[in-house]
Amino acid sequence: MATVRNRRILLARRPAAEPSEADFEFSEVKLPDLPPGQMLLRTLWLSLDPYMRGRMRDAKSYAPPVAIGDVMVGGTVSEVVSSNLPNFAPGDIIEGRTGWQEYAFSDGTQMRKVDPSPAPISTALGVLGMPGMTAYFGLLHIGQPKSGETVVVSAAAGAVGAIVGQIAKLKRCRVVGIAGAQEKCDYVVNELGFDACINHHAPDLSHCLQNACPKGIDVYFENVGGKVFEAVLPLLNNFARVPVCGLIANYNDAQLPPGPNQVPLVLRAILSQRLNFRGFIQSDFADQKASFFSDMITWVREKRIKYREDVVEGLENAPQAFKKLFRGENFGKLLVRVARPNLR
Amino acid sequence: MATVRNRRILLARRPAAEPSEADFEFSEVKLPDLPPGQMLLRTLWLSLDPYMRGRMRDAKSYAPPVAIGDVMVGGTVSEVVSSNLPNFAPGDIIEGRTGWQEYAFSDGTQMRKVDPSPAPISTALGVLGMPGMTAYFGLLHIGQPKSGETVVVSAAAGAVGAIVGQIAKLKRCRVVGIAGAQEKCDYVVNELGFDACINHHAPDLSHCLQNACPKGIDVYFENVGGKVFEAVLPLLNNFARVPVCGLIANYNDAQLPPGPNQVPLVLRAILSQRLNFRGFIQSDFADQKASFFSDMITWVREKRIKYREDVVEGLENAPQAFKKLFRGENFGKLLVRVARPNLR
Repeated sequence: MATVRNRRILLARRPAAEPSEADFEFSEVKLPDLPPGQMLLRTLWLSLDPYMRGRMRDAKSYAPPVAIGDVMVGGTVSEVVSSNLPNFAPGDIIEGRTGWQEYAFSDGTQMRKVDPSPAPISTALGVLGMPGMTAYFGLLHIGQPKSGETVVVSAAAGAVGAIVGQIAKLKRCRVVGIAGAQEKCDYVVNELGFDACINHHAPDLSHCLQNACPKGIDVYFENVGGKVFEAVLPLLNNFARVPVCGLIANYNDAQLPPGPNQVPLVLRAILSQRLNFRGFIQSDFADQKASFFSDMITWVREKRIKYREDVVEGLENAPQAFKKLFRGENFGKLLVRVARPNLR
Repeated sequence: MATVRNRRILLARRPAAEPSEADFEFSEVKLPDLPPGQMLLRTLWLSLDPYMRGRMRDAKSYAPPVAIGDVMVGGTVSEVVSSNLPNFAPGDIIEGRTGWQEYAFSDGTQMRKVDPSPAPISTALGVLGMPGMTAYFGLLHIGQPKSGETVVVSAAAGAVGAIVGQIAKLKRCRVVGIAGAQEKCDYVVNELGFDACINHHAPDLSHCLQNACPKGIDVYFENVGGKVFEAVLPLLNNFARVPVCGLIANYNDAQLPPGPNQVPLVLRAILSQRLNFRGFIQSDFADQKASFFSDMITWVREKRIKYREDVVEGLENAPQAFKKLFRGENFGKLLVRVARPNLR
């Protein structure tokens, strides 16, 4: 095989607040020959997700941080170029976590073969992948929505929120989204069937939300934190469930917001209304992936769950595109098209 | 029957901060004749509990507030003086919620006959009553302690905390209490078998707690809030459970504490460590009372669960005694002996 040069994006430094292009470093290396027991993967799609901001931080979390000088972590869909593994053949489409680079070796562990028949392979990073599982497990296992209840989801037009709301509609709930642009609100109501959606830039956010939730809130799927959380808290009904999935409003904060300290308010609400707050990541539910794929493939095929992708062309544009997540500038699942398949 | 005069304690006004005697008003009324379908109860024991502070406040909670001029709510053990009800006879011992008064009529609903054989009848307000159920349901159903895990309980020498820790020891956990006096710490370690107990007045509370919990904290049974909560939060392990039972440190606060606003810290911990916070009151588990009584009567009889009572003599001393709860001055379940039984 001809010499392969691998372009990669490394973490150059830890951002203090909003990440910028200068936090990343481009690097190009020559790939060695394929070792025994490995396969060579060529990245087709790279997923950009809010959790990556956490990996850039050197703080206690559910996963270790990316080291300075290491390839940025990230979910990918790749094609197998060559393989010394019996279960993987050239042309296979693989979902894995090979990061912000054009090529990667893998011994096949934690790699999943993607069936390209139900939907485009990019959905293995979206509705049929990590964001889909996040929505599905968080809503159904933690949120436990019941018919007729009111479900509120923030970042409602995002990769996770849009799916949360649609599943909640399938469960016959009243679904109210919160999003950061009128265009996104219109989309989730008109295209996805949400009952209402509030623009969180509205000056009277609390009042709008209260009007949209006349019977209070039974499930709040938390993706953002900050002022949206503050508006939701007083509306939570007795025994409401709060799956805590993300806090994108706070990810770039270098320090805590000014006082007063509202922790006593939160704890008092938890006690008085007997709320259940539970943080999770989708991999906590790894033993239940089969039910996810069975349900979600059916729903996608039957167009009961729709999805939207926001595609950026070229690996070199990943750092700039990444910033969009924190500005609410993406509209749908944010993906980088790194290459087009050669072998199919 | 001779004319019965009923001495009662009414709520006179809503306290702004710590309750004082001036928030209560004494009143004496003549009892009318016993109506049909009612029984006359004579209060023997009145329970004083932190939740009563919440009922003095005109705020959204799990129960409506006491109206100004109404008899203060409270759990009681009474004897039946006379009865027009087929299932209740003079001399029966009854646990109910007849409030801060010497006598009450009842139609029998939400009244429980107390079997005086397993333990003194006052325990129907403690280890074999509401505080016992609070400890039992909160720890076992929400905390779900597993053998070898570390359970931390605040207000460890209190009516609920002392039972939480002892049940956790029965479940083979490492049990660390937090209490407000050295005498209380010594008691829970030496008498109740806790593995350690930290005095929350220690200047290095966080450090002491960390030393006492070398493997982190898997269950935190929250009774107090405030600075104790802040010390516990960073030590919570992945998948830790936090039954939120009480927040006595905050009950008298007229305003929120100064900043910074630490809500983002709490939410981030919930997300990153996948914590489960759940508020509850024991009546949420009313359908499981049978298992409570079966287990707890056995444990008390076998002296595997011990209890301690702090008895105040005379209804007139209830307002002054009530303040002790918020100063940490009670040592054991706080009870007012209103009268001694006449009929047994």
